[in-house]
Amino acid sequence: MKICLNSSILDAYFQSQLKEIEDKYENVNIIYHKGTAPLNLENIDLLITSRITEEELESANVLKAILFPYTGVNNLPLNAIKNKNITIVNSHGHAPIVALRAFSLSLALLGRVVELNNQLQKGDWLGKNGNSTWDSILNKRCGMIGMGEIGQHIVKYLKPFHTPIVTLDRYLPRCKQIDQITYYQTINKVIEHSDIIFVSLPLTKETKHIIDQKMLSRMENKYIINVGRGELINETDLYNALKNKTLKGAALDVWYQYPKKDEMTNYPSKLPFHKLDNIVLSPHCSGNASSSHTLVVNEIISNIKQYIEFNKFKNIVDVDKAY
Amino acid sequence: MKICLNSSILDAYFQSQLKEIEDKYENVNIIYHKGTAPLNLENIDLLITSRITEEELESANVLKAILFPYTGVNNLPLNAIKNKNITIVNSHGHAPIVALRAFSLSLALLGRVVELNNQLQKGDWLGKNGNSTWDSILNKRCGMIGMGEIGQHIVKYLKPFHTPIVTLDRYLPRCKQIDQITYYQTINKVIEHSDIIFVSLPLTKETKHIIDQKMLSRMENKYIINVGRGELINETDLYNALKNKTLKGAALDVWYQYPKKDEMTNYPSKLPFHKLDNIVLSPHCSGNASSSHTLVVNEIISNIKQYIEFNKFKNIVDVDKAY
Repeated sequence: MKICLNSSILDAYFQSQLKEIEDKYENVNIIYHKGTAPLNLENIDLLITSRITEEELESANVLKAILFPYTGVNNLPLNAIKNKNITIVNSHGHAPIVALRAFSLSLALLGRVVELNNQLQKGDWLGKNGNSTWDSILNKRCGMIGMGEIGQHIVKYLKPFHTPIVTLDRYLPRCKQIDQITYYQTINKVIEHSDIIFVSLPLTKETKHIIDQKMLSRMENKYIINVGRGELINETDLYNALKNKTLKGAALDVWYQYPKKDEMTNYPSKLPFHKLDNIVLSPHCSGNASSSHTLVVNEIISNIKQYIEFNKFKNIVDVDKAY
Repeated sequence: MKICLNSSILDAYFQSQLKEIEDKYENVNIIYHKGTAPLNLENIDLLITSRITEEELESANVLKAILFPYTGVNNLPLNAIKNKNITIVNSHGHAPIVALRAFSLSLALLGRVVELNNQLQKGDWLGKNGNSTWDSILNKRCGMIGMGEIGQHIVKYLKPFHTPIVTLDRYLPRCKQIDQITYYQTINKVIEHSDIIFVSLPLTKETKHIIDQKMLSRMENKYIINVGRGELINETDLYNALKNKTLKGAALDVWYQYPKKDEMTNYPSKLPFHKLDNIVLSPHCSGNASSSHTLVVNEIISNIKQYIEFNKFKNIVDVDKAY
């Protein structure tokens, strides 16, 4: 069995774990794809990669599965992968870390941490006096749009702050072990009963622009945090809601425009989000904490072993639903 | 009985609560001190204020107590107050809020929230790729220097992150209800066994510069958060430890230099802390959240009632110890 690892996600720890697999199972060969040449997938059984093109896929003749080291697969060529009958397996190992990012961004947004830091850098003690320089999360109602591994971890982190949790009743089956959640049938109702709205949905045909102008117009005095995908929220509507202060504030880790390959510079939207003062910008790094790589590597390694021994995978993506 | 309220901390809610007291107890009169004229304390029994000068104190002829709406009394003229046999009563009602600020600042520091925001404002996706753009608090060892109301609340907020807690054994009596704390005899040992150090001590003769160059030199790869008072940590030693990266990072809400009265501009230290890149600056606003004023007002009102009815105060400051 040939397992190919695309080098962008390789490090010493990953290499040592793969070496162990190679040593343990006689018929397993690990191939490291390095450099910028296109992937050659001939005779490769398993591919571990965070990116692939349709052209590269053409060389796959025996490929069973792509092990994707992140969660959101919306940038993979899903139809081409489906047509070749290849399984996609994604990763949820870093969900506690992504949830931590969402939570940290919410506290920074309510606490005006960025704004107050940047003012004091100039010697300006904005908010030294006054009774409500910043907003506390204590007792704030938190609305969860998305209640997968990430959403459930955010709820855990919120616990000491006695924040009432509201979410959609379709998530009820997976939330049975969490106390004191109030369920509503529609996103509108969830928003109505929330002060802080956490968005952690996958991006699919159904969820694209799931939050639109009409919903944003009902978010007066509310905050929104997005660690799912930018396109879950309509770009222009979000910008306008922030610009005209319909929305109190937003903290965004996911965006509408990314730097082109091999570049590191580009504004995150065609609209000047970066000039707004009621926003915290984060460069799509929610999964990039020091400890998240280990969590993801461990999950992938355990998945490979399970496949070798039992011909089974955990976390198979439903390509039609795209998550 | 005459109760004087110095207006800087007055708002509609405080006024309504004081009105209730005036209505409930026949012999109680509330006097509102407004404007910038010096306080006249003649015939005043109780004074609610966040500031007072020795000159103003001279007019006090029957003053029993000063009700101070914050915790740290180090800026009050303690000797003059003691000589006049006046009781100081301080406030701990906003400890959950101050603790929240400390906690939020720690997540911002480890998460490089300010730095990554400011880079993305310029279109720079610092840390979009790479495995360790930011540092997660999960499983990090947290050292508590100070374990009063603030420290105990920080520990509560840390609970979902499974951070081992270490502190000084002198705090053991007040921490009996908190599980899984490891106690050490010296601050050196606490620092040795911590990754993140939370400082929330009061400033007294004993605690001034309690963290010095020698301790800071042992903080390689560690973070420090200070919401107590600036002078707990030696100014020059702290600056140097950050400048030469002995210390991985600091988040500071308390400072060495403040704006002069009626001014809002001044750098927070004689040293250029504001030019460092491993620091989060916060303008001494840890108690200034939207909900903290209500917490403090409620505590003061309940203390006044207790005094009127039982001639007793809660939270009497030991003037010799200054806390």
